[in-house]
Amino acid sequence: MTKWDFLVTDANIATMQLGNGAYGIVRDAALAISNGCVAWVGPKSDLPSIDSAQTRSIAGRWLTPALIDCHTHLVFAGDRAAEFEQRLKGASYEEIARAGGGIRSTVNATRNATKEQLVDCTQTRLDSLLNEGVATVEIKSGYGLDFHTEITQLEAARALGDLSKASIVTTFLGAHSIPLEFHERGDEYLDFVVAEVLPAVHERDLADAVDAYCESIAFSADQLARLFDEATSLRLSIKLHADQLSDGGGAELAASYRALSADHLEYTSPQGVEALAGTDTVAVLLPGAFLTLGETQLPPIDQMRDLGVPIAVSTDCNPGTSPLCSLRMAMNLGTSLFQLTPEECLAGVTRNAAQALGLLHDRGTLEVGKRADIAEWEIEHPRELTYWAGLNQLSSLMINGEAVD
Amino acid sequence: MTKWDFLVTDANIATMQLGNGAYGIVRDAALAISNGCVAWVGPKSDLPSIDSAQTRSIAGRWLTPALIDCHTHLVFAGDRAAEFEQRLKGASYEEIARAGGGIRSTVNATRNATKEQLVDCTQTRLDSLLNEGVATVEIKSGYGLDFHTEITQLEAARALGDLSKASIVTTFLGAHSIPLEFHERGDEYLDFVVAEVLPAVHERDLADAVDAYCESIAFSADQLARLFDEATSLRLSIKLHADQLSDGGGAELAASYRALSADHLEYTSPQGVEALAGTDTVAVLLPGAFLTLGETQLPPIDQMRDLGVPIAVSTDCNPGTSPLCSLRMAMNLGTSLFQLTPEECLAGVTRNAAQALGLLHDRGTLEVGKRADIAEWEIEHPRELTYWAGLNQLSSLMINGEAVD
Repeated sequence: MTKWDFLVTDANIATMQLGNGAYGIVRDAALAISNGCVAWVGPKSDLPSIDSAQTRSIAGRWLTPALIDCHTHLVFAGDRAAEFEQRLKGASYEEIARAGGGIRSTVNATRNATKEQLVDCTQTRLDSLLNEGVATVEIKSGYGLDFHTEITQLEAARALGDLSKASIVTTFLGAHSIPLEFHERGDEYLDFVVAEVLPAVHERDLADAVDAYCESIAFSADQLARLFDEATSLRLSIKLHADQLSDGGGAELAASYRALSADHLEYTSPQGVEALAGTDTVAVLLPGAFLTLGETQLPPIDQMRDLGVPIAVSTDCNPGTSPLCSLRMAMNLGTSLFQLTPEECLAGVTRNAAQALGLLHDRGTLEVGKRADIAEWEIEHPRELTYWAGLNQLSSLMINGEAVD
Repeated sequence: MTKWDFLVTDANIATMQLGNGAYGIVRDAALAISNGCVAWVGPKSDLPSIDSAQTRSIAGRWLTPALIDCHTHLVFAGDRAAEFEQRLKGASYEEIARAGGGIRSTVNATRNATKEQLVDCTQTRLDSLLNEGVATVEIKSGYGLDFHTEITQLEAARALGDLSKASIVTTFLGAHSIPLEFHERGDEYLDFVVAEVLPAVHERDLADAVDAYCESIAFSADQLARLFDEATSLRLSIKLHADQLSDGGGAELAASYRALSADHLEYTSPQGVEALAGTDTVAVLLPGAFLTLGETQLPPIDQMRDLGVPIAVSTDCNPGTSPLCSLRMAMNLGTSLFQLTPEECLAGVTRNAAQALGLLHDRGTLEVGKRADIAEWEIEHPRELTYWAGLNQLSSLMINGEAVD
């Protein structure tokens, strides 16, 4: 007799397993959980004799992998609502920067916050994501840009992982921008990041990956090679903000380091997409930033599809360019702004988002042996998760086999 | 001694009163409620001696008028997620229509639903709106397009008003589209609407206003004059879906009937805006439909501003062209898609939305004598309500002086 901790029956399941038809759908299905993992999944008619501590019928509701937000800047202090308002009243980016706005204002506020304050103000944003079925959230540093604050931001992210039922994945983004103290000395700042901050981050086990912003207003592909060489030697995975505002060869750089993901990609060239296609690097698309910045250059999605580059979708939640705390809304924007299909959007916040975090072995699809991170929905079909925006159809969320209230 | 039912102190208040500075802000304020209405509002230092049954400090949190969603098609059955998906996979509108999609599929599903089923499936959408601070929701008919179902839709909306703490305002939109039975006989259908449905709607007191869709694919301005003449003679207010996909003289038609609102307005001509400016007609902008349809023609917002046409913002929540159940998201889209300012967006879901429903005397600003429909927010400034999308900063909602759980 099979022994399980928990059995769900009368479910419709979108396993999101690749190669199992659209959405990997199994109808009239059952799913069993043991030790926080999926122990069985398939048509109810195939269920073996069971000895399950608890059985629950969900009366035809749908199960999907819990959602994964694979690119966020969730930990920050202050907000940029005032400059958001100034911009809409006609102020230029330059005027706003002169008045102390832009990323520097977030850096200042974040430097002035304690770890406890950062945890506290991030909690609301994290809860918003969980409330719509997100179980795994990547959080980047990059608003410290000094030794102490970069460490504090990552510690705050780790602390949120301890406090919350959500699984928090951290990314060191020291090379997000050149701080004021290093004005026009980007190389020196990168020296500092590589020689001092990165080793400390690594030693304290504060980051699961290393990210950077490859753009004319930040760092070039050539500059970032040093950082990525060092990260690689520390066995840290690579991610990259690539080709968002111009083609800086970011996709090629990410591919050359077998990065987990290359993110944004609006200006990536055909050669860049080809480079990605030769690797397992995920293209992470961020429609919230595209919308907020009023961009018009679309990422080369057709070519990505043609060459089989996996596509993820994320909120990019941040106070400057993507004040968006809803992954469901990011999915919807993925259709209206990028013409992604609903299935691509759902794969983009489950299977491919897991791959973008190097966690596909562990989550992102509903398969035996993977974590029981499961969202239950009051829907008729999983396409509705992308179709509706602002309608929370979540019935329950389970993380690691435990129900989240 | 003044006697009040309830007193809130240590508040920051955005009264949204016109002419009282940006957002009508009163800091370090108090607000008193008696008999479901605002009885006093002003700086705490001006408070008279009081005898209030209950006093509550809200520690610097913000109060605004509860939000108003002034243009929705919230009551419908079925969904159009499948055709949404087909379209994103490349199917044309024509192919979808041939396969039974488009508004006809919603009409069929709505005709096949009972009133109880309509109430039940709408409740989730209504709850979503309330959860983010909406207290008044306009709901249109227009998915029945026959006598029985138009009546049933409006009855369902009225029933929701009885069941919910929200205030539901109903609009008869029998002239939404030409039903299949009247194919190419739009005039005959309008005859039927004017002679049979409208009088019954009026007799049963099921509608607060009459709306129509003025567009080449529906009804012309000339055709609609009859309907509006009849509505006017019944003392029903007028609203109009105007100039969404082409300039059909909708704004001029609305203005000529002193309509409460003209809605969409992407293709309105300079003459149309001038016509609106001579009336109290509100321009209701619907960025959710603009986004979902991938439109590029912007409504003439600068001219509306120059001529002082009041602007409202709404979800247009409907299953075909705006599957959006978040008024906060509509506000955010108002900035990114239409370059409205955060203050215009907040006025657009409070003061001007109330005017678009003919209810400005009663709600839409926090003023003595108006309904105590009040949202309490965990924010630093009301501009944040437009800045953040998907982050629910609502602390509490009061409708008619009563707390909503």
